[in-house]
Amino acid sequence: MGLYRVRSSTISDKGIVVFKPSGKVIEVEVGTLLSEAAAQANIELNLPCGGQGRCGRCKVLVEHGPVSRRPSAKLSPTEEEEGYALACQAVVKGDVILSVPEQEKIERRIAEEAKGAERIALPLEFEWPLDPSIGKFFVTIEPPSLEDNTTDFDRLRRELKAQHGISDLTIGLPILKKLATTLRDADWQVTAVLEMGDGASANNCGPYLIDILPGDQTAQSFGLAIDIGTTSNVVHLVDLLSGRIIDRASEYNGQISCGEDIISRIIYSQKGDGLAHLQRLVLKTLNGLIDELVSRNGIRHQEIHKATVTGNTTMIQLFLGLNPRYIREEPYIPTISHPLLVTAEEAGLNINSQGTVDCLPGVGAYVGADITAGVLSSDMYKTDALTLFMDVGTNGEMVLGNADWLLACACSAGPAFEGSGVRHGMRATAGAIEEIWINPEGYEPTYRVIGNVPPRGICGSGMISLLAEMFITGVIDKSGKINRDLPTPRTRVGDHGGEYVVAWAAKTAIGHDIVITEVDIENLIRTKGAIYAGFSVLVHSVGLELADVEQVLIGGAFGQYINIEKAIQIGLLPDLPWDRFKYLGNTSVLGATYSLFSRDLRREITEIANRMTYLELSADNRFMDQFVSALFLPHTDTASFPSVMKLLIKVRS
Amino acid sequence: MGLYRVRSSTISDKGIVVFKPSGKVIEVEVGTLLSEAAAQANIELNLPCGGQGRCGRCKVLVEHGPVSRRPSAKLSPTEEEEGYALACQAVVKGDVILSVPEQEKIERRIAEEAKGAERIALPLEFEWPLDPSIGKFFVTIEPPSLEDNTTDFDRLRRELKAQHGISDLTIGLPILKKLATTLRDADWQVTAVLEMGDGASANNCGPYLIDILPGDQTAQSFGLAIDIGTTSNVVHLVDLLSGRIIDRASEYNGQISCGEDIISRIIYSQKGDGLAHLQRLVLKTLNGLIDELVSRNGIRHQEIHKATVTGNTTMIQLFLGLNPRYIREEPYIPTISHPLLVTAEEAGLNINSQGTVDCLPGVGAYVGADITAGVLSSDMYKTDALTLFMDVGTNGEMVLGNADWLLACACSAGPAFEGSGVRHGMRATAGAIEEIWINPEGYEPTYRVIGNVPPRGICGSGMISLLAEMFITGVIDKSGKINRDLPTPRTRVGDHGGEYVVAWAAKTAIGHDIVITEVDIENLIRTKGAIYAGFSVLVHSVGLELADVEQVLIGGAFGQYINIEKAIQIGLLPDLPWDRFKYLGNTSVLGATYSLFSRDLRREITEIANRMTYLELSADNRFMDQFVSALFLPHTDTASFPSVMKLLIKVRS
Repeated sequence: MGLYRVRSSTISDKGIVVFKPSGKVIEVEVGTLLSEAAAQANIELNLPCGGQGRCGRCKVLVEHGPVSRRPSAKLSPTEEEEGYALACQAVVKGDVILSVPEQEKIERRIAEEAKGAERIALPLEFEWPLDPSIGKFFVTIEPPSLEDNTTDFDRLRRELKAQHGISDLTIGLPILKKLATTLRDADWQVTAVLEMGDGASANNCGPYLIDILPGDQTAQSFGLAIDIGTTSNVVHLVDLLSGRIIDRASEYNGQISCGEDIISRIIYSQKGDGLAHLQRLVLKTLNGLIDELVSRNGIRHQEIHKATVTGNTTMIQLFLGLNPRYIREEPYIPTISHPLLVTAEEAGLNINSQGTVDCLPGVGAYVGADITAGVLSSDMYKTDALTLFMDVGTNGEMVLGNADWLLACACSAGPAFEGSGVRHGMRATAGAIEEIWINPEGYEPTYRVIGNVPPRGICGSGMISLLAEMFITGVIDKSGKINRDLPTPRTRVGDHGGEYVVAWAAKTAIGHDIVITEVDIENLIRTKGAIYAGFSVLVHSVGLELADVEQVLIGGAFGQYINIEKAIQIGLLPDLPWDRFKYLGNTSVLGATYSLFSRDLRREITEIANRMTYLELSADNRFMDQFVSALFLPHTDTASFPSVMKLLIKVRS
Repeated sequence: MGLYRVRSSTISDKGIVVFKPSGKVIEVEVGTLLSEAAAQANIELNLPCGGQGRCGRCKVLVEHGPVSRRPSAKLSPTEEEEGYALACQAVVKGDVILSVPEQEKIERRIAEEAKGAERIALPLEFEWPLDPSIGKFFVTIEPPSLEDNTTDFDRLRRELKAQHGISDLTIGLPILKKLATTLRDADWQVTAVLEMGDGASANNCGPYLIDILPGDQTAQSFGLAIDIGTTSNVVHLVDLLSGRIIDRASEYNGQISCGEDIISRIIYSQKGDGLAHLQRLVLKTLNGLIDELVSRNGIRHQEIHKATVTGNTTMIQLFLGLNPRYIREEPYIPTISHPLLVTAEEAGLNINSQGTVDCLPGVGAYVGADITAGVLSSDMYKTDALTLFMDVGTNGEMVLGNADWLLACACSAGPAFEGSGVRHGMRATAGAIEEIWINPEGYEPTYRVIGNVPPRGICGSGMISLLAEMFITGVIDKSGKINRDLPTPRTRVGDHGGEYVVAWAAKTAIGHDIVITEVDIENLIRTKGAIYAGFSVLVHSVGLELADVEQVLIGGAFGQYINIEKAIQIGLLPDLPWDRFKYLGNTSVLGATYSLFSRDLRREITEIANRMTYLELSADNRFMDQFVSALFLPHTDTASFPSVMKLLIKVRS
């Protein structure tokens, strides 16, 4: 409800901002960005570019009052005349009334389809010897007497040593505070919960008492594997005694509202309270997922004694509250790549407050723990076959190698395939066109929409398939330009040059045509070009050819949707026999899960991180050459794509 | 200022309590103790017995309103009639007006005389090789490049290893958060502050980064040695680079208002918020002393990176917030005797938040870190001479031994010599009679008063001297009974039996006679008897006699005031040649100071704690026998006190 206040004076360095249609009112300093005022008023504005004024998604209508704008190419002259402004680029100069257009909602649930993508992982029977770092030990202790008046802690240590062979136990103040009472209330029969250490985390110095529980509570032991993706967060609730994944939950990363890609988030983190705000957002998402798992499975938060966390380096730093600024600036230096164990309380995770949080190690600024965990769960570090492992998400990270060596790189692919930077791009939720076919005669498209509803936009797999179909049918040429001479109203010239209409306005849920423009196509080609250049350089830098790659393992939630055939047709994937490709699902969270079950595997991840060589592409001329060559469909070097050439000849003949 | 409210209804389960003369008003639940209501209103009431209703010091006058009292021997029938109640034993039943009599003020400063007692320690030049556990290392780091893109933390580790030979450095989240910015702002020239570990604290696992500072800040390094006495707290500010004590400050322990001895504090800690309240009180005292030292010496709190803390086991547990309940209950079990390192932030000490707090190890419930530290600074653990070390404070702790063995015991001497449990007893502050002489002809006393003002009471050394003089001159007999036949108005029968008037009302600052009663004398004899019985049992239990003791080392602030001659006359100390006695001052804080300067000495304290055998006297029949024998002046066995016997013959002949 709005509360329209009457000001007694108009001379002030503050301004009142009224937001319509919600009616929310807030007073801010003159000079405050409209987007900041909205944040203070708890109004969610999408800032996919992190507030850089580049995406144009945060348009608001200034109905009344003084606002100072920076010029922006994202506003048409008409829009400017009507009073529109980009909230992230305009500042309050006095009392203002703003109207916030209905925007693409920041989706709060993962589409059912997205959940299906990880079906492979659930239920998973763990096949390695179980050896979690969390140990639960039941001890019966002789009560003290005048003859044996050892202190409570030494008495516990003595019995853990005698009954379970555990030496050098340490303890923190919070558990020490409840030790005396717990021992006596439990009649000297207690369960000691220990972080046994894994020899892999850098601050590991032996068994540490996490909790002391009355009676025998060794029958259950829970942990969490957490994957903090730039886009999606996934949490596995695991049973450390049986090696089973009990349940899982996933949700979009709450940070999306502050930027869709890593760079936008880093930029956002540098503004005022930005870093702390981003940390709070991801913790809110994760703690929400934990609440969901805890309530659905009838356990209590304090029964979870460990969380193993994976994610790219920026996500890990934001999770820990470490300033990610220097990840973005050359020479791209993270604060730490093997983070030390912290308590759940320090990390802000709502599990047992003294439980340990283990952030898995990464390799560098752009090859993080998600990749080392992925390499672990992909098994590529144990195989003799020359393997290319790709995690195609907002970043394109890839690793080439086998049991003997591992070479990694990252190319800033950008979020084009995740729906950002493309006019009608969207994430793979209900209303997204996920697959498209174009009839080579008449160029009419047919498509499949997630949820079987009128379409609202096109998701990543839809764009791969659209691009491939347009190229194969000749709607676009090899440079991505629309053929304007085709006998169809679907191709036309719009505000941004040539475009192809995928869905007419009347058939959509948004009331206007869903199109793909030449600008969009250029973005998509740059993205696929960067990925192709990445693995080309990897392979060439060890003196091999792409054809030598014996298997291509595709991880990451998005990887699951890639239609191999279409991806090869646009030159996103190399033209190899299809049986060399294998989908692995969310390799990152699986790696974290494995390392919860086995200290050996946890040590393997550290080993993988240490073994992996990182190739910095931004300083590599070969990358630039490869990138430029890949800016065609499927590639400048058509000889590298024999199957696509064959198909072209067949279709166009 | 008071705010007298008008109640609209008298039917309520709350009551308003008005305190006069301050006029403070507070609303409390019906059933609240008057003492709790006072605490909530921030009115300081003395509760020397911890609110057990035993000392009678918290008398208040109920001027109006319903109050429910428990019967108490501490109120005379007249007082009860007048409306007096013990605040700790009476509860609010409705709206009440109370008058709080002017009480003995809770003294907020240590008497100048008390400061003098530790003169020996200041300035102290440390003579051992300096080797503090806090290390400050200046490092110049090569800035990162694309060719050398090691993370910030690994880069720092690498240089600390290369330039200073430090391996396996660990780091906590708070310092990690500022690492990237500090390194760059300081142009890659920084000072790393490390807790190097001493191999003595149980959670010691190698060098730990406490702070990272711009530029070269290795020229200064500060630490604190803190002695938490039951009565007095003392803090030394030390220079870890030169081994000097820079300054010191002392103050009464703020917990005194909740009980004067350990047992009273433990009882207080069991009530409601008692434990947390006691912890806050001692932290307030300590942080006040730190503020004083910091401001007087022009340094900043965050420049202090370590505090080493000593005190008896109960004081250490209260400082750490550990429930001391089982220290009091048989079989007297502390939670821990070798506490683990905690950060200053966890401990609540206002120094560098990541600085380490090292609580020195004790032996058991009643032989704490003050004694192990005292044994260290007394050097008795290195001598061949049979040594008796005594720390005479609110508890009587003592250690017998030499370089080969150490045997300790504690006898609950009680606070009689510290002014509690004696009608006109008081602490050694201005107005205290500290020495008394009685003329054997006429039995008129002369006395010396601290501060040369009219007397308000008698402090511990005054009581020793009074007891000795009364005994030697025959005012009392060997069982402590007043000779009522003496030709002097100074001896008479009062409310509590026989008494001796030390000062007539007109000569005092309190307006009535200062006396010592037979009840007081009995208390004092029990106290000295317990101490004497303690060291007798120690000596006999190893098959030796008191005469075999080659030196008696007296530690503790109070020890400083004991007049050896008089103490022997009453049988508080054994009748040995005076040159065998040596005063050491505050051995506890000195031990903590030494262990800050030298990791070797810190390890020695752990060694001392492990070597020391604790003799539990409460279960020892020999102690009871010795105690009963010592309940005479100087002792049942007069042959043990030849010098006193000789004097008696001389004086009374």
